Amino acid sequence: MHKTLTALIALSLASMSTTATADTPALEAQAVRALENDTHAWHFVEGLTTEVGPRQAGTEAEARARAWSMAWLKDKGFANVADEPFTMDTWVPGDIARARVTAPFAQDLVVLPLGNSAATPAGGFEAEVVFFRTVDDLRAAPEGSLKGKIAYISHQMRPAQDGSHYGFAGPVRWVGPGIAASKGAIGAVIKSVGTDHHRNPHTGGTSFPAGVTPIPAGALSLPDAENLERMFERAGGKPVMLKLEMNPRQIGATRSGNVVGEIVGRNPSLPPVLLACHIDSWWNAPGAFDDGAGCAIISAAALHVKQAGQPLRTIRVLLAGAEETGLWGSRAYSDAHIDEAIAVGIESDFGADRIWRFESNFRESNPALHKRIAAAVARFGVSNGNDAATGGADLNIVRDQKGALIDLQQDGLRYFDLHHTPDDTLDKIDPVQLRQNVAVWTMVVGILANEASSILTGGPIPSAPAIMQD
Amino acid sequence: MHKTLTALIALSLASMSTTATADTPALEAQAVRALENDTHAWHFVEGLTTEVGPRQAGTEAEARARAWSMAWLKDKGFANVADEPFTMDTWVPGDIARARVTAPFAQDLVVLPLGNSAATPAGGFEAEVVFFRTVDDLRAAPEGSLKGKIAYISHQMRPAQDGSHYGFAGPVRWVGPGIAASKGAIGAVIKSVGTDHHRNPHTGGTSFPAGVTPIPAGALSLPDAENLERMFERAGGKPVMLKLEMNPRQIGATRSGNVVGEIVGRNPSLPPVLLACHIDSWWNAPGAFDDGAGCAIISAAALHVKQAGQPLRTIRVLLAGAEETGLWGSRAYSDAHIDEAIAVGIESDFGADRIWRFESNFRESNPALHKRIAAAVARFGVSNGNDAATGGADLNIVRDQKGALIDLQQDGLRYFDLHHTPDDTLDKIDPVQLRQNVAVWTMVVGILANEASSILTGGPIPSAPAIMQD
Repeated sequence: MHKTLTALIALSLASMSTTATADTPALEAQAVRALENDTHAWHFVEGLTTEVGPRQAGTEAEARARAWSMAWLKDKGFANVADEPFTMDTWVPGDIARARVTAPFAQDLVVLPLGNSAATPAGGFEAEVVFFRTVDDLRAAPEGSLKGKIAYISHQMRPAQDGSHYGFAGPVRWVGPGIAASKGAIGAVIKSVGTDHHRNPHTGGTSFPAGVTPIPAGALSLPDAENLERMFERAGGKPVMLKLEMNPRQIGATRSGNVVGEIVGRNPSLPPVLLACHIDSWWNAPGAFDDGAGCAIISAAALHVKQAGQPLRTIRVLLAGAEETGLWGSRAYSDAHIDEAIAVGIESDFGADRIWRFESNFRESNPALHKRIAAAVARFGVSNGNDAATGGADLNIVRDQKGALIDLQQDGLRYFDLHHTPDDTLDKIDPVQLRQNVAVWTMVVGILANEASSILTGGPIPSAPAIMQD
Repeated sequence: MHKTLTALIALSLASMSTTATADTPALEAQAVRALENDTHAWHFVEGLTTEVGPRQAGTEAEARARAWSMAWLKDKGFANVADEPFTMDTWVPGDIARARVTAPFAQDLVVLPLGNSAATPAGGFEAEVVFFRTVDDLRAAPEGSLKGKIAYISHQMRPAQDGSHYGFAGPVRWVGPGIAASKGAIGAVIKSVGTDHHRNPHTGGTSFPAGVTPIPAGALSLPDAENLERMFERAGGKPVMLKLEMNPRQIGATRSGNVVGEIVGRNPSLPPVLLACHIDSWWNAPGAFDDGAGCAIISAAALHVKQAGQPLRTIRVLLAGAEETGLWGSRAYSDAHIDEAIAVGIESDFGADRIWRFESNFRESNPALHKRIAAAVARFGVSNGNDAATGGADLNIVRDQKGALIDLQQDGLRYFDLHHTPDDTLDKIDPVQLRQNVAVWTMVVGILANEASSILTGGPIPSAPAIMQD
């Protein structure tokens, strides 16, 4: 029996090894086909943005997006397609968002509320604006100094290929209104955290510290923010007065959900490869770049890997709900599945422009696999980076499991022109670049899904069945 | 006495001739200074867009723009600055503009009313949309076939350096809603007449034929129009239903006005050189490109010509009112001044990008002057075109007088990305290109304002005083 088992293992490993090497050319050929003529990804994002459009977390529109995505996945042959429900605290933007400078000049400004913003009284309020060039300037303002005033907070974000200026400017939105409120401000407006010059503000979530009552908080479009700053220069010290009216509100707990689907592997008891994106968007855009494209890319790649031959491991797609308003879906997925090991997690949530750099968090622990992936994606113009992958927002489960992560970094030079604005529409997606994403993902996911050993360490896989443990 | 007069004339002409030739290098030097460091034009357009902003024709905002412009012109040393009033029929956009596809998919579309649009009933109406790819397709629809429906009219405008695709696509807006109304439509929406892909519709005037009752008529942003077209493709023949709500209205006769100012010439009895622009904008943008920049360019050029030495002829700037809603100011100016000869008219109303081509309507009647101007602007990258200048919208008086016209054609590749949209903001102006405009205008206006003979024919000027008629 022992000999038989050993022989079986040997046979199995040999066959796997053969499959793995034999599969590489098939996989590469499929990735090249994806590069040249993938239609799945465009079909997904075109359909989602046309038939559903904006899909704010926790609303009926997000529920329609889940239903639409599930129908699409089933139609394309995904197995175990499901909507895994969770509840969340839901904020909605309302339908009034007005800002008007009333003195020393009179002019409307284009504003949108930030997620978690409070409402103004009906009819709005008018108050003097205090101008802060940076969040640090706001932090330095004396306690109580903003009593009865509206804080305006600026920044100098620039396009960066790696998206790093989001970290540079993001605090203006993330914490600016909360700091202003804690110093007595009755409202806050920020220069949109973005890099374009269209009259479409960048919304996004903000938060208020414990014990600080939320205030109305909005984003001005960049042209409007710059105009407001010029008004300060021309005001000659006279107070700049702003009238602000918005009616967003918290509507309490509502249902959201994570959509999952699988390409079942030859050995479904092996930990799966998890591909993540998010299905929700802000209310103000059809969410083509953020993140319809991501869901399109991961789903298309899974289909191409399957087309090259049934993979060893199961590939699971996670179209997370309610990412934008606080990673509700990511946390719910981790809570529900923390005891089910994930082999490796990868996420697409940075638009649809070309992937230019590959990172993993197993460069040192599993150098052979890291190098093999780097070599495989080089032909698509993807370099081997120097940093450790940290994974996207919807990969909480992998971080919670301290598992393997890969980042396939997309070119971010255009991303913050569109991020969280009404301009995030289908026409912004370049089909050629979208297909490059699908091709790179096909290569990477195909290699990972056919890898018998542990992704993170290259060693045996604790949770794998006995037959795998040589 | 006669001998004395003849001597005086000879002296005067000699001095003029000397001045004219001596002035060319001075003028050229001044134009180069303008190219390198003009500040007048930026100061004008920055101030107008910051301190006034949107200035819809016939409203208090347009009145503030006139007051602001007059103060600026006086401050810079223009003489005879005046606000010449006229009355006009005024349309205002209201504050509600909503469009939502309700079936077979549900999604909001971004819409703005067109000038002269009627209002919907409060709460809006819902109707089936009929899709026309072109105005000609709409024209071919049977009479009465649109009864109770909303017409959607598309086009395929592309950027064109000479702006000629405005003529290609413009009829969609100019006459589309009127044709739809005449065939029974209760509403019309058009693909914005523009070339960008931002969620900011291009408004602009439309008109309804005599006897046809105006209907609600709006422009969808180009991403929204394309989305609507994709919905038709995905609807599988099911009716596409649109809910439309808008509340624009006609408010009857209001006061507008033309702002004028002069650099007085050495011989103010000679017909002046008329430089035109318009001071009004649509309500939805600060009108930086359209046409704050134009008023900035002509005013700055007049100041630079003066700086090079008092010109022979008076230079008059005309900052026309109410151009956008029907050339009210242009017609009022011609009506008021038709008996006062204009030497030549030039207009700037096509943004602030580089001038690339020069045209006149005296190429054949006054070839020497035409060639002299063409040679003078060549150093600024301006070619000698092949067509006859027709003049801008605010030069009605020159056309009515059958006078001399010059077109200094600006690069229009970006113009219809911005035209009549909220995106027409100061940041769209490239200061380097703006200064090139001022430099070219300085050369051209300087030559014309120092030209003793008739601009149109090169012959003597009938309305000039005796001393000029050699």
